[in-house]
Amino acid sequence: MGNQRDSIGDSSAHNIYLTNGASEGVRQVLNMAIRSKEDGIMVPIPQYPLYSALITLQGGTMVPYYLDEPKNWGLDIKDLEYRVKKAKDEGLNVRSMVVINPGNPTGQVLTEQNIREIILCYENSILIMADEVYKNVYSEGSQFLSFRKVLNGMGAPYKDNELISFHSISKGLMGECGLRGGYMETHNIDPFVEEMFYKLKSIELCSNTIGQLGTLLMINPPKRGVEADEVVDLYEKEQGEIYGGLKERAKMLTATFNKMERTSCSEIQGAMYGFPRIHLTQSAIKAAKEQGVQPDFFYCMQMVNETGIMTVPGSGFGQRDGEFHYRITNLVSPTSEMRATLDRLEAFNSEFYAKYSQ
Amino acid sequence: MGNQRDSIGDSSAHNIYLTNGASEGVRQVLNMAIRSKEDGIMVPIPQYPLYSALITLQGGTMVPYYLDEPKNWGLDIKDLEYRVKKAKDEGLNVRSMVVINPGNPTGQVLTEQNIREIILCYENSILIMADEVYKNVYSEGSQFLSFRKVLNGMGAPYKDNELISFHSISKGLMGECGLRGGYMETHNIDPFVEEMFYKLKSIELCSNTIGQLGTLLMINPPKRGVEADEVVDLYEKEQGEIYGGLKERAKMLTATFNKMERTSCSEIQGAMYGFPRIHLTQSAIKAAKEQGVQPDFFYCMQMVNETGIMTVPGSGFGQRDGEFHYRITNLVSPTSEMRATLDRLEAFNSEFYAKYSQ
Repeated sequence: MGNQRDSIGDSSAHNIYLTNGASEGVRQVLNMAIRSKEDGIMVPIPQYPLYSALITLQGGTMVPYYLDEPKNWGLDIKDLEYRVKKAKDEGLNVRSMVVINPGNPTGQVLTEQNIREIILCYENSILIMADEVYKNVYSEGSQFLSFRKVLNGMGAPYKDNELISFHSISKGLMGECGLRGGYMETHNIDPFVEEMFYKLKSIELCSNTIGQLGTLLMINPPKRGVEADEVVDLYEKEQGEIYGGLKERAKMLTATFNKMERTSCSEIQGAMYGFPRIHLTQSAIKAAKEQGVQPDFFYCMQMVNETGIMTVPGSGFGQRDGEFHYRITNLVSPTSEMRATLDRLEAFNSEFYAKYSQ
Repeated sequence: MGNQRDSIGDSSAHNIYLTNGASEGVRQVLNMAIRSKEDGIMVPIPQYPLYSALITLQGGTMVPYYLDEPKNWGLDIKDLEYRVKKAKDEGLNVRSMVVINPGNPTGQVLTEQNIREIILCYENSILIMADEVYKNVYSEGSQFLSFRKVLNGMGAPYKDNELISFHSISKGLMGECGLRGGYMETHNIDPFVEEMFYKLKSIELCSNTIGQLGTLLMINPPKRGVEADEVVDLYEKEQGEIYGGLKERAKMLTATFNKMERTSCSEIQGAMYGFPRIHLTQSAIKAAKEQGVQPDFFYCMQMVNETGIMTVPGSGFGQRDGEFHYRITNLVSPTSEMRATLDRLEAFNSEFYAKYSQ
């Protein structure tokens, strides 16, 4: 398990823990990693808010590091090094670093160079938590590379860095999130810690069996020469159509946002989201403040009320001060329906700035 | 939901939280209830070991209270009062009390009198956690009564006591434990606490949808006049056969253990287990000590090695010092297979005491 995706062949059942989706695994690892307020966990901003919530719940401290929007939401290694140093100077034990790749909500795909730099920037062993639940990559120049694969290809001491990677069926093929299936795989974890982790997992009984089955099917798709040709043909056809649609819609979202008034968007390279930036007018910001809500929340609420289109304000994920974004998915299918949705969104956007023009 | 089992009609969706089985709900409630080592949670001994493990994990203190084997594992209210007082004298905040009814591993069913006494014994508000996942009752004089029903029937201030009850499909009809479905229902919880609990639950995404479906089917079985007669007939026939078999085997277990050498067993009134006491000889205890294991563990290991029958040593659940038990299930089906299993167990027991006679 895990081998095919990571393209290396040394996984062991002893290092694989089945979970009710990736979120449960993240909770269990953070439960183990955080001992007190002095334990810091590095989290990318914008982030999937599960992380901030769980770190608060476990009583640790979140150490944010900022993804670089002009560099297509890539990691700025200088900023990362600065954040680690600053956290240490403030007396925190930096215990772990979360990486979400492909990104949620930002849709970027890390380059091998970027992954290597992240690993290299630690002179001592910080646990890397690699949230790798999206395998959809749309951009021609990009490919998904697991942290485990890159780590393994590096020399000592980096290849012995502690790493736990997370996978899920929620984004397997069609968004089977309700089944709650997934797994995490540990690499180079200290044997005593691994033993304690096994114990911790054992308290919580098994993950649900249908989710386990879904996980098996996801990592073990029909193979030519093993299954009947017609099974493999059908699988490849359906998979191709689904991925093809996601890719087409990812490109459509990027193009649409970059021609929309006061809106810009990095290229959606992977995952299932666009995270366009909205350059709100002063009158819109003022109107939001009068209602006592965040400006991006104000924009998104107007949108859902006018058009029925649900998006998530960027303030829910974190963003640089004074910047505003929202998250939208490319799952709307078929593509003609996504087109119609974006047409409504564009019309709303024009009307919004007609009203709040200054 | 929950109404039919509790036989009262005022459940609200706002008080019901779906879970991946009861264990997850218990974890979430203990997460909320325990703030520090000074927070005590009362747990029956013998207990389902989930409780001790989770209390340790959350950093609280377990306050054991002992079930009374000669009174068919009923609650000894005098002991309970003594334990609460002792815990308070030691500076603990007694925050919650766990009750498992019908009992695991002990198979008893609490009487209404017993439930009323438990509720009455608190002059101030201690949260009752009612683990009510077993609805199987075998004993003619017994019936399942939910804490919620009894609480509601009592006058103020008792009917306003805080209560959270847990249910699960794991023991619904055939042991559908792998599906991980269940729910918990809150009663009289302080509105601020309820709000925080809702937030806590929201971090963890939804429970798996197949488990949700199973839960719906469990609490909403086919009804005459609503579903077709043949559906209701088939359901009642199959349910009757399953419960009939469990009941027959519960009686068989009790009878067999009480005629076996150096073994005694309270009447199995409900749930899915017998918890026979074994009166080990000094030579058996000595042999166990030489191996560095608990005497009941020694007995159970010999049993599984000789016969293939898996049981759980009483030391895993907690028991009074110097007493030894093991847990065995009545799920072995058909009943003829259970009979054959018990014959093998009886033969093993005789051989064991032939070897360790002194």
